[in-house]
This record gives sequence, C-alpha cells and structure tokens, in this order.
Amino acid sequence: MSSRTTAPLSPTARTRVGRHHDRALSDRADLLAILAEAKICHVGVLMGGHPVVLPIVFGVDPDGPDEGGTLYLHGSVAAGALSASPDQEVCVTVTHVDALVLARSAFHHSMNYRSAVVIGRARIVDGEEKVRALDAVVDQVVPGRSATLRPHTRKELAATTVIAVPLYEASVKQRTGGVSDDQPDVDAGVWAGVLPMHTVAGELEVDPDVDDRAVPEDVRREITRWSR
Amino acid sequence: MSSRTTAPLSPTARTRVGRHHDRALSDRADLLAILAEAKICHVGVLMGGHPVVLPIVFGVDPDGPDEGGTLYLHGSVAAGALSASPDQEVCVTVTHVDALVLARSAFHHSMNYRSAVVIGRARIVDGEEKVRALDAVVDQVVPGRSATLRPHTRKELAATTVIAVPLYEASVKQRTGGVSDDQPDVDAGVWAGVLPMHTVAGELEVDPDVDDRAVPEDVRREITRWSR
Repeated sequence: MSSRTTAPLSPTARTRVGRHHDRALSDRADLLAILAEAKICHVGVLMGGHPVVLPIVFGVDPDGPDEGGTLYLHGSVAAGALSASPDQEVCVTVTHVDALVLARSAFHHSMNYRSAVVIGRARIVDGEEKVRALDAVVDQVVPGRSATLRPHTRKELAATTVIAVPLYEASVKQRTGGVSDDQPDVDAGVWAGVLPMHTVAGELEVDPDVDDRAVPEDVRREITRWSR
Repeated sequence: MSSRTTAPLSPTARTRVGRHHDRALSDRADLLAILAEAKICHVGVLMGGHPVVLPIVFGVDPDGPDEGGTLYLHGSVAAGALSASPDQEVCVTVTHVDALVLARSAFHHSMNYRSAVVIGRARIVDGEEKVRALDAVVDQVVPGRSATLRPHTRKELAATTVIAVPLYEASVKQRTGGVSDDQPDVDAGVWAGVLPMHTVAGELEVDPDVDDRAVPEDVRREITRWSR
C-alpha cells in the first residue's frame, strides 16, 4: 500500500462530519477499504439547477495523478450527467449497510453502516490514463479481471467517457455496535436487537456459449470473497 | 394496493431515461417495489453551490398527501443537509445491484440492477403527518415494526426533522439477463458469465439486556425475507 493510503483525510468544512463526531474515521485506509468493497457509487451532479443522483460503476487508483489518489467514473452509463459535469464539483458517495439496529423505541432505531463521501472537481480523462482508468473500473467489479481481458479497442475507448475525481476531500463515517436505548424502555422489558446484513454471491451462471467451463481464477476469488 | 400504485410514472425531460430505453420501467408498482426492498436511499441536496449525496433512512406512504404518494426522509441523520433543503429540489435514488455481468471484454462488463430516481421539491413535515412519516421510516427498516413500539414522545418528535418528497416525478430502470458480447470475442472462446449478488440477513444479536428472548414476529418475518 502506498504511503498516500495511510495519510489522514483532509476534511474541509464541507466534508467535516457534522453530527456524531464519534462516528467519523480519519484514515485514508478506511476510505479505500470502504470504496474497495463497493460495486457502485452514487454520484451527485448538478443538472438544470438541481442535484441528480445516479448509480455509477467506478474504479479507484490510490496512486492516481490527483492529490489523495483518483476515483474514476465510467461514463457510458450516465452520459448525460457526466457530459454535464466536466469542471463541475461532484459528490461521490458509497454506503454499506452492515446491520439494522432494532431499538426499543422508534427514535433509537438506527443502522450500522460505513459510508464515504468524496467531493471534488470532475476532470475528463484521456489517453493512457483512460486505459488505466477503465482497467481500474473492471478491477472494481472483479479484482484482477482487467489483466485477463483483451485490450480495449480504439472504438471502445472513443465510445466511453471517463471522469476523474480527486480522493483528496473526503468524509468517512461508520456506526458499529448495539442498540442505544433509553433506560426506561430497557427497564420496561422491551425486546431489542441487531440484525446484521451481508452481501453474498449467488450461483454463478456461465454463459451458454462458453465451451471451456473452467471458471477463471479472478472470478473464483470473487465468489469466495462474497461467500459466508 | 391503491389505484395510485398502478398508475404510470410521469417522467418529465429530467426523469426520462436518456440511454438504454429498453431498460426503463414505467409502472408506479415497479417504483414502489424497488423502494420497498431498500434500507437506505441516497439523497442529493445542493449545499454551497455543489451537490452533496448522503445515505439516509426513509419511509414510503403510497397514499401520502403528495401527488404520486410521498417519500419521507428522516432528518436527524442529516440535519445539515435537510435543514438546507426545504423548498429545494432534491433527488432521491435507490439502487439494487443484482448481478455482476462478467463479459468477454472490459467494454461489455455491466451489472444487473434496479434503480429508482425521484426528483421533487422537499417539504418540511409536521403534526400528525410527522408521526405517520416516522412510523413509515421504522416500517421501512422492518415492515410492521412501528405498531409494536411505544408512541413517539413530544421530545423525540421535536428532535427529529422529517422531509417529504413527492413520488410523482420518477425514473425507474433495470438491467436483467446475461452478457451481451461481440461475436468475435465469443468465437475466440473467451469465458463469460453472470455472478448474482444478494443481500442476506446474518445471525440476529439480541440485546444482552433483554430477558424474554422470544424474537418478535416482525423481526422473524424480516429474517425470513432476507434468507436464501
């Protein structure tokens, strides 16, 4: 891991955690770990004077050219939003729900979660960086997969928009642990608990046109990663 | 289900699906089904001239007072963002990743997913509607749970901000099915497949201060709902 990944985050006023300071994490490694576990992010862009939030596949290069490393947004799934965003400040958010916190009152219901919010100026990516960015996007879907695929064609590169967002300005939060109820509700004998939630892989569906049924190693690793 | 839930969505230019029209769904029932399966949404608000995207717990009332029904955002987790948003147009997005589509080229990698994007003017909720809204939020976490809890206190209600967003203007998309590769890559004998992803419940952790270990029926139903 590069030295950058262990550097502290640099929250500004707008990425400083406003509530529940105890839930704020400050290590770049925490940010990268939360991003590494995600298959999609939610990107906020300004369109027509109001925010639009779209689910977008992304990639991460901790050693990318931007301060703090680079997050890449893959454009073809959000052509409109991304063509509107160059040089715009965008917000990229990733959230994992880890558990439902089922308290004794509605008020204390909560979730255990990990979230990362990145704010930065979008930059259009081209040339060699674009190839590395698209590889990072594929490796986000299945780590190690880009190295197993044929190179991108010029036509494919031309048909895809890639946007870079610096990982510099970020806010990372998590909630862990049990319920936090008022004592009178505890004394009243009301039930409470925490229900963990996980993402798991289902049964792999090999494409019917594949002759060699051997599952590639990167895909086998991914299935293991999402098994419980 | 009310007649509203079977009415078509009413996409405007800004919620009309721009790419992959074949992936657009047009039934309000599809919108409600996608929302019903989500524990959190990602809300985009405008702060300081740029969008901020935050994960927020929410509730849905298909028969709420707004045209198309009402989505409620629970404020205390995002006090800053929500106090900035009254009368602002906000964007609420929910996404489920159903599968990784592992194609024969980087270009054709994709995901099977279902997503809902709702755009509407935020409205502060008070009085009786606020109580119903907070019940809807708890019932989003575990359906049926609000009826098992003691009433909200006045202090709890005062400490919570609730925002309503009309479910009128929404865009619903999904991708299903297998890989969609170029024939030369298929002919080259490259492997491809689809890896389904699911959310499942883990092992329930009953709070240590609970004497009666019987799990409430609403929680048992939720565990079953997220079992595979």
